[in-house]
Amino acid sequence: MTTGLLMIYTGPGKGKTCAAFGQAMRAVGQGLRVCLIQFVKNRACGELVSLEKLAATTGLVEIHQVGSGFSWQDREMTRFRESALAGWQLAREKLDAGACDLLILDEFTYLLHFEVLSAAEVLPVFRQRPAAMHLLVTGRNPGEELLAAADLVTEMQEIRHPFKKGVKAQKGVEW
Amino acid sequence: MTTGLLMIYTGPGKGKTCAAFGQAMRAVGQGLRVCLIQFVKNRACGELVSLEKLAATTGLVEIHQVGSGFSWQDREMTRFRESALAGWQLAREKLDAGACDLLILDEFTYLLHFEVLSAAEVLPVFRQRPAAMHLLVTGRNPGEELLAAADLVTEMQEIRHPFKKGVKAQKGVEW
Repeated sequence: MTTGLLMIYTGPGKGKTCAAFGQAMRAVGQGLRVCLIQFVKNRACGELVSLEKLAATTGLVEIHQVGSGFSWQDREMTRFRESALAGWQLAREKLDAGACDLLILDEFTYLLHFEVLSAAEVLPVFRQRPAAMHLLVTGRNPGEELLAAADLVTEMQEIRHPFKKGVKAQKGVEW
Repeated sequence: MTTGLLMIYTGPGKGKTCAAFGQAMRAVGQGLRVCLIQFVKNRACGELVSLEKLAATTGLVEIHQVGSGFSWQDREMTRFRESALAGWQLAREKLDAGACDLLILDEFTYLLHFEVLSAAEVLPVFRQRPAAMHLLVTGRNPGEELLAAADLVTEMQEIRHPFKKGVKAQKGVEW
């Protein structure tokens, strides 16, 4: 039995976005078409530079960075809502059209957590996608309904993190 | 404060190797030199195909697959030991020479778990590497001593996995 999976990388630990990009590498290397929609983040990061290179050499990758740069400590929600909803519209189009073999919605869970969207709106769209299409969602606090609907859930637990020893975020490691 | 980090991705959940390859993408995208030594696995996998493409376009990536194909259920340890020790010798050379900015030892923990090497042999070599060099180790059961020495540890917890529902491993998802 093979089937399109709904996969979630969640939890407070480092590695969710890295694992999603690694998953993209794996899929592209097997000839699958990958579409990445990156919510929240909007700055250049190393993994995106590399994914653009893979896109250029393979023609199998589509990248959309729709984030407003909002961080979840922010109070300024209007811009976040607008860009998030535009990203969701784009995701719906990809899902409805079966436009790729693996759709990655990076940091999508914050849309649910901050009630820009409800699980009741999102899950039917997820379920109606083509049967072979894989869907990978990352971010903290996905909520019970999304978790219950997923085929695969990995929770990244933070056992130790260098920030707590005063080491600052480093280029090539954190972004 | 910035410094070379010893990072560990461990735990039973899916995502350890993917996160390591995503970390490689991030580092390469920021211009860092990456060296990957892959223990245990020896078959072609999608992420390796993609990393080879990145290696070719950037000149920043070095890849060594030293695994014997041993799986940790196996009883046939001789070949595993030999290839593992050859891989460790190579890792030592990279560490001593500061041959890259990020050295990834994928599935290295099994060498400790199966007592091919001891933490007492490994940790001094890790500690004597150049101060700015990042080191990322993946695999289950790293053992208390390696965990204690790490700057960053993320444990991938398996909350749900499709194998348990009878879905078989799929190309582009599991390899």
